[in-house]
Amino acid sequence: MRLFNFKSTKQVIGVVALAGLSTISFAKDKVYTWKIATTWGPTLSPFIDTVHNMADMVKEMSNGRLVIRVDASNKHKSPFGVLDMVKGGQYDMAHSASYYWKGKDIETLPFTTMPFGMTAPEQYAWFYYGGGMELMQKAYKKHKVLSYPGGNTGNQMGGWFRKEIKTLDDLKGLKMRIPGFAGEIMAKLGLAVTNVAPGELYTSLERGALDALEWVGPGMDIKMGFHKIAPYYYTGWHEPATELQFLVNEKKFKKLPKDLQAILVTAMKLSAYDMYIQNYAMSADSWSKIATDYPKIEIKTFPTEIMDAMKKANKELIAEKSKDSPLLKETIESQLNFQKKAREWTIMSDYLYLKDNLK
Amino acid sequence: MRLFNFKSTKQVIGVVALAGLSTISFAKDKVYTWKIATTWGPTLSPFIDTVHNMADMVKEMSNGRLVIRVDASNKHKSPFGVLDMVKGGQYDMAHSASYYWKGKDIETLPFTTMPFGMTAPEQYAWFYYGGGMELMQKAYKKHKVLSYPGGNTGNQMGGWFRKEIKTLDDLKGLKMRIPGFAGEIMAKLGLAVTNVAPGELYTSLERGALDALEWVGPGMDIKMGFHKIAPYYYTGWHEPATELQFLVNEKKFKKLPKDLQAILVTAMKLSAYDMYIQNYAMSADSWSKIATDYPKIEIKTFPTEIMDAMKKANKELIAEKSKDSPLLKETIESQLNFQKKAREWTIMSDYLYLKDNLK
Repeated sequence: MRLFNFKSTKQVIGVVALAGLSTISFAKDKVYTWKIATTWGPTLSPFIDTVHNMADMVKEMSNGRLVIRVDASNKHKSPFGVLDMVKGGQYDMAHSASYYWKGKDIETLPFTTMPFGMTAPEQYAWFYYGGGMELMQKAYKKHKVLSYPGGNTGNQMGGWFRKEIKTLDDLKGLKMRIPGFAGEIMAKLGLAVTNVAPGELYTSLERGALDALEWVGPGMDIKMGFHKIAPYYYTGWHEPATELQFLVNEKKFKKLPKDLQAILVTAMKLSAYDMYIQNYAMSADSWSKIATDYPKIEIKTFPTEIMDAMKKANKELIAEKSKDSPLLKETIESQLNFQKKAREWTIMSDYLYLKDNLK
Repeated sequence: MRLFNFKSTKQVIGVVALAGLSTISFAKDKVYTWKIATTWGPTLSPFIDTVHNMADMVKEMSNGRLVIRVDASNKHKSPFGVLDMVKGGQYDMAHSASYYWKGKDIETLPFTTMPFGMTAPEQYAWFYYGGGMELMQKAYKKHKVLSYPGGNTGNQMGGWFRKEIKTLDDLKGLKMRIPGFAGEIMAKLGLAVTNVAPGELYTSLERGALDALEWVGPGMDIKMGFHKIAPYYYTGWHEPATELQFLVNEKKFKKLPKDLQAILVTAMKLSAYDMYIQNYAMSADSWSKIATDYPKIEIKTFPTEIMDAMKKANKELIAEKSKDSPLLKETIESQLNFQKKAREWTIMSDYLYLKDNLK
């Protein structure tokens, strides 16, 4: 008989004399207080909502035994330093996007999204049933950090352009804000790719310091107001399923009791899926508002000549960057193989269904 | 000071004399033991997996305080009686599909899927951000049962046909197994719609008692072997995003402590999303096997003439069935309005992306 089988999460915190019962002690659950640093500002929906949703779920499910304080970037002042802060233990967790570290660790890049890559359901299938999770843990192992999907934006739009793009020549010299891998592709195509702080994007576009820019999609773009000054809205090619990431300090995670580990992992996974759906709803809603208020906005797809050039540049860049990292090579090959198989299913299911119902 | 604030989930189960401590009592968590009845047999992946995933997550996160026993249909012998068993309290929960009750409660029908309706992300956006959850609770209120999304199959295929269908006339008199609302549409088009037990489907198709049948999609169809005898595989129109449902006895749910309620709701929601992704992976994988082993199978879409007739029959049926139920009317209108908005986003995001990358 294990009479004193107090669980590790509980501590006896008091012994009190009681009339009739001689004395009684009572158990109180140990409370873990964690902090999460986000790359995002405190109002950047739906990214920051996802973090709050995760923390709220954890608190409720654990009955207050695991409480996670959310620090937005205005608090910790280091939006792109969050991986380092989790590694160093100043924070227990972070919420960000893997491709932000491409400068210091190219191996984490493909876990966000790849140009011409998988759509959201294809990519989630790869993560959970196609070996993606295992590869992501491999990439983050050197940082002693665990990584989990942290929310998908769905297909991102190709950006707002002040002029219509008809040929490759129309792109040459164009000043565009487009970050990451996609920016490198655009640079190969002759654009002047620049980075501009989010707060200055609208003015830059208005004054001609930028001719075009890429942000996310209607749900997040509407607040920025780009549609008021750049009427050509190009469809996406570069970020078909941008997945954010939760990062967790491995040592701290291991110190949590098993049930709190399960609660945390479940809350991260659910809040990630939820963001995909939240952003889908936001995009549908915002696009219908933009289209009603600004009927002159035109949805455009890039001409084949340009798409082909982008695809070629993408392949060259992948080959170049894979040369020095077997893990990056393995990850991208795993993605391409899975994509080939999954895309056939996507075409015969949702794509042909949508095509049949276009009218 | 609330010194004796034992939570409702805990009970003092013993007081024991201890050397040096005079006496000590200890708290042990109350364990809730629940049962869930499923419409599915014990090996029907991914449906039954979803139920086990939910139960496993609940057990782990609650540290064994809520344990849910899964009874497949071979155990309770009443696959389509599970709603009644939850209402009556013989079971705490069920896992099934709302459209199975269309005979006795037509108002629950649209929460599974509708012909020519929303795709999976569109429908999840409607459930969680477009008022769908509220309407579903309304429909189940009369049964004193709570209802939650329970897993999506994604777009279902239109079925296996032994002969190619080129005109409306080719459909007339065709013997087809296709259940539910879609079956009523097919009957309006002149098919002889019949129901055949799953175990007899293959033989019926082989011997000509059936000319065609609809099951789910490659992931679940592959085990049935239909591809060996019916080489025309038609794309879907009738179940674009079949959502299963978890049903919970409302009274029993209210008796759970708040943290266990949160754990249960979270596990149901996550296992539902997960099934969508699991079935996506299964479909991609199974289709690639079928296509390799049976290269003569042809993917077909129904000709426009037939699609138009199906759409017309669908509208007529909806109008007819909505006449007597304001709630059914409200639900279908809510879906159609949301679909219109969401579909625009789907087309400009995933659809055009897929189209641009067909080659």
